[in-house]
Formats: sequence, C-alpha cells, structure tokens
Amino acid sequence: MRIDVKKCAALLKEQNNILILTHAHPDGDTLGCGFGLCRALIKMGKKARVINADEIPRKYSYLFDGMPCMDFKEDYVVAVDVATENLLGALADVYSGRIDLCIDHHGTNTEYAENLYLCETSAACELVYEVIKELGVQIDKDIANCLFTGISTDTGCFRYASVTASTFRIAAELLDCGADNGFVNRVMFETKTKTYARLERLALDNMQLYCNDKVAIMKVTQEMYKESGSNEQETEALAPLTRQVEGVEIGITIREKPDGTCKASFRTFETINAAEIAKLFGGGGHPQAAACRLDCSVDKAVELLAQKCGEFVG
Amino acid sequence: MRIDVKKCAALLKEQNNILILTHAHPDGDTLGCGFGLCRALIKMGKKARVINADEIPRKYSYLFDGMPCMDFKEDYVVAVDVATENLLGALADVYSGRIDLCIDHHGTNTEYAENLYLCETSAACELVYEVIKELGVQIDKDIANCLFTGISTDTGCFRYASVTASTFRIAAELLDCGADNGFVNRVMFETKTKTYARLERLALDNMQLYCNDKVAIMKVTQEMYKESGSNEQETEALAPLTRQVEGVEIGITIREKPDGTCKASFRTFETINAAEIAKLFGGGGHPQAAACRLDCSVDKAVELLAQKCGEFVG
Repeated sequence: MRIDVKKCAALLKEQNNILILTHAHPDGDTLGCGFGLCRALIKMGKKARVINADEIPRKYSYLFDGMPCMDFKEDYVVAVDVATENLLGALADVYSGRIDLCIDHHGTNTEYAENLYLCETSAACELVYEVIKELGVQIDKDIANCLFTGISTDTGCFRYASVTASTFRIAAELLDCGADNGFVNRVMFETKTKTYARLERLALDNMQLYCNDKVAIMKVTQEMYKESGSNEQETEALAPLTRQVEGVEIGITIREKPDGTCKASFRTFETINAAEIAKLFGGGGHPQAAACRLDCSVDKAVELLAQKCGEFVG
Repeated sequence: MRIDVKKCAALLKEQNNILILTHAHPDGDTLGCGFGLCRALIKMGKKARVINADEIPRKYSYLFDGMPCMDFKEDYVVAVDVATENLLGALADVYSGRIDLCIDHHGTNTEYAENLYLCETSAACELVYEVIKELGVQIDKDIANCLFTGISTDTGCFRYASVTASTFRIAAELLDCGADNGFVNRVMFETKTKTYARLERLALDNMQLYCNDKVAIMKVTQEMYKESGSNEQETEALAPLTRQVEGVEIGITIREKPDGTCKASFRTFETINAAEIAKLFGGGGHPQAAACRLDCSVDKAVELLAQKCGEFVG
C-alpha cells in the first residue's frame, strides 16, 4: 500500500525491534538512510539495527561511529532505498515477502513491501529527513551527517538535474543541525586512494566512443583491478566520468565480475531514459542513472550495448 | 571605506551609466556577478555594461544572451570579485585608482576601491544576490542563472568547505526564481570537450608526488596544449584534481605561458593556507585556493615549489 510521510512515521512509532535493510553493493544513500533512521529510532528509545548483504566500504564508517550494537529478534522489517527485493542481494533469501515498510525514491519500485512511502526525490535521504521530522526527533550532528551523505552522494554533490529547491533547503537545515559538509564531501568526492587513481587512469585510457561519438563505453576488468591494486568497491566514481565527454549522450561503465559475467552502469542526460535501457536487459534505476547485469563477457557486452544504444541515440 | 549591503545598494540606486569590471582570465563567479548585477541594473532602467580584459570562454555565453549592448560614457565604475587591481589585467592600466565600488569575497582584498562591500562568503555571487534583493529588483530566470553559476563554480558545485547553510538557502531561492541548475551544472561540470579530455589525461599522467607524497604537482605545458589541441582557457578544471589523491595536502598546477614563464595554482584542505603559500611568491587568493605567477621555467618552478611546500607539510 502506498502511504504518506505521516502514516510512515505513525507506523514506526508503534513498533519496536526494528531491522533496517539496505541494498547490496551499498552506497551513501542507502547507508545514510539506514543509519540516519536507526539513530533516530534509538533516540526514541527503540531497539533498531542496520544490516547489509555486503561489506560496507571503510570510508562510510563515520555513519555508524559510536552507535550501540543491538541484538534482538526483529518484530518489524524496513527497507530503505531498495527498489526491488533482489537488490537486497543475499538478504533477499531471508527477507523476501517479509518486508513491512519501504522508504524509497525509485520510480521503478516494485511495491514489494506491505507499506511503501515513495516520492521521486533526488535521494532517499530526503524522505528519511521528512520521516524523522515527523517522528519528532531532534536531528543531531550524527543524524545530519548520515542524511547529508545520502543527499550529497546521490546527486553527485548537488550536480545532477534531480536536485530541487527542496533538496537545497534540506541541506541547509542539515548544516544548521551540525552536518559537516566539508568533511563529508572531502571523504566522498575529494579523496582518491592511490589505487583508485591508478584504476581511473587505466579506465579513462580504454574508454571508447561509439555511435557517432554519442555513446562512451568504459571497461573495468579484473586484470585492471590487479594492475592498479584497486577493487570493485572503488568503482562507484567511475560511472559519471563516461558521460562527461562533449557530445556523449549515453555513458556506460562495464565492470567484469570474478566469474567472467559483468555489470553495466548507464549514465545519461535528460533526453535519454537510462532506466529504459537498463530494463531491456532486466535491470532498472533512475532516468539518468541505471544499471543491469549481463550474463556474458565484457567484450560481448560492449558489442551488445553499443548496438542497442545506437537505437536510442538515433 | 568598508560598507554594508544597505549602503552598497543605496550607492548603486543613486548612479547611472555604470561600468562593471570583472577579473582577467574570467571564471563563473566574476562573470556571474558582473552579468547578474548588470541585468538587475538594466531592469531598474539604468545603463550598465560589463567588460573584461580577456576573451570570455564560449561556455559562459548564456550569461549575457539577449542582453542589450549599451554604449555610454561611464559615470560610475564597479569591480566584482576582484581582489586586487592588477587582477583586472589590461583593464588595470585604464581603471586603476578610478574604481568607485567593489563587491568582493576575498579576505585578501587590498581595499583599492572607494567603497568596498566584502564578506568572505563561498562566492561573490552570494553578495550580489544580497545586493540585488536590497535593490528591490525581482530576480528573474536570467539573473538567477548568472548568480547560480557563480555560486556553483566557486564552490566546485557545492563541494568545498566554504559552503554554508546560507549558500544552500540562496541556491534554493535561485531555483525558485527559475535558475536551471541541471543546465548550468551540465555545462560547467559535466561537459569535457574532447580536447580537454585529452589534456586531462596528459596532465594526470605527468602528475608527480613530492614531500612524502603530501604535495602533488601537475605540469601543463605549451607542448601539451599542442598535443591535445586544448588551450589555457580549458585548464580551470585541472587544479582541483591535484589535491584529490589520498594523503596529498597541497595540490599544485603549474601552467606554462607562451613566453616560457608560468602560473601556479594551489589547492589545499583546511590544515594549510594556500593564500599564504601564494603570497610568498607575490600571489594571493583564498585559504584553500590561491595562485601566483612565477618568472621562471616550469621545471624550475616545480623545484622551487616542491622545496617551499616541504616547509608547510612538515
């Protein structure tokens, strides 16, 4: 059932022992939502904890610094920033069909949860901000840093067209509540590990243009991880680079998995719907940022995607 | 004399035939201030125009699209985002000692103007926003795009620690007034010309670390402009790349001039004052972004700066 922010807060107020699920291969928005909401619920005297199918990259550790480690049997399961159950990764096996509440900003959400609070805001953290306000919890510095992280990372640091006046107003409020924007943005955007810096050079060096230079495809192979000392966890920042070359309308990053299959990330501008392209291959996402898995080699994927994208760029 | 926003607006209200000076090698902030203020003054029925010593890069053309071309003998001279008279470039010869009003956000401003409205905001456009509000002019889409451009470009798209809650609130207001943030950010941050993309690869490939990897120096030579087909106008985006490598405390970009001398740009984080370093070489700027000219070859400059910076990173 689709619900509004008031109903969402009312449901949470009634509950205790709340388990919060975040999506696999976690990013700043799902983790910011998870830990921001968890901190707020704990401030209300409730038991709550956040779980993820994958390892949480080290750079996000400030999101849960100082949080109590709570052990309890969950009575209520909440998913944040999770568009479909299979995005939960390994957690899907355990929690599929058992999710009571979902807070999400993906238009492609499959309505798998009993209750769904969804608006297509720039980041799911905008919605969690509204929920926490409605819960009546005073946003402290730690919560503010969680929510600011989600908004900042999901908008490419306020760069994308998805940012609205409301996004900026929430960011202002979070700064007033103590969010350390200089710190968060430095960690998220201004710090390349040496291994990532090497991987980025390799990836930029192999980026090729297709379809009259309207499609850019960047390959990220297991070999490149080896050569740079980097790994898949560090690849998040590569995808936006593909659509930055003048004239490019679709930017694609193809990451090779250890088993030889791959994952493709699509970045577009307003004229082309990335989610529609991803959907053709069983994936999904946002109008300007989407992804899918491909059960083939990287080189085969390049061929397949270059051909299919040719139909979109005309 | 230092004045406040009320006095600044009062002075402008009294005047007509207003000439607005912007700094040489213009950026989004000085141009956003110039054209934003100019459009507001014209809306008030005044004559005003903006001039610059150098050519204005094509990507900024939307700032002055559709503006009337006004020819008049100036009665009042205003400088925007200009810390010292010599930053006016060739215009300094004509206007030095003749500047009636300066609106600026550089702590290093030399108070060369008769009246100075200065606050150390993230961008000078934040101040011009306040001035236009005080003038009672309704901010339209064109003015909003000018001011948004200045704020967005001077903060690395809201990334730097200089961004405050007030910056975000002004950005929200500008969106409400019609600023097209998606368009502005796409043009300013998401569009690399093919020639710039080539230059960026060359520059990243030659970047070297010094002083126990705490100082990164990137050289941009005339040879590299030739090889990439790029030019100095396109180098603005390179400087921030230097401080992004983990552990780097001072990032330096050294650009070779056609005459073989060079210009160095410094980028730091909160712990080191870039303006102090630049000052040692006769330059200036902000705590985290500053620049100076050097009367020597690029290789000599690398040697000189690596040595001097060694004293700052300890």
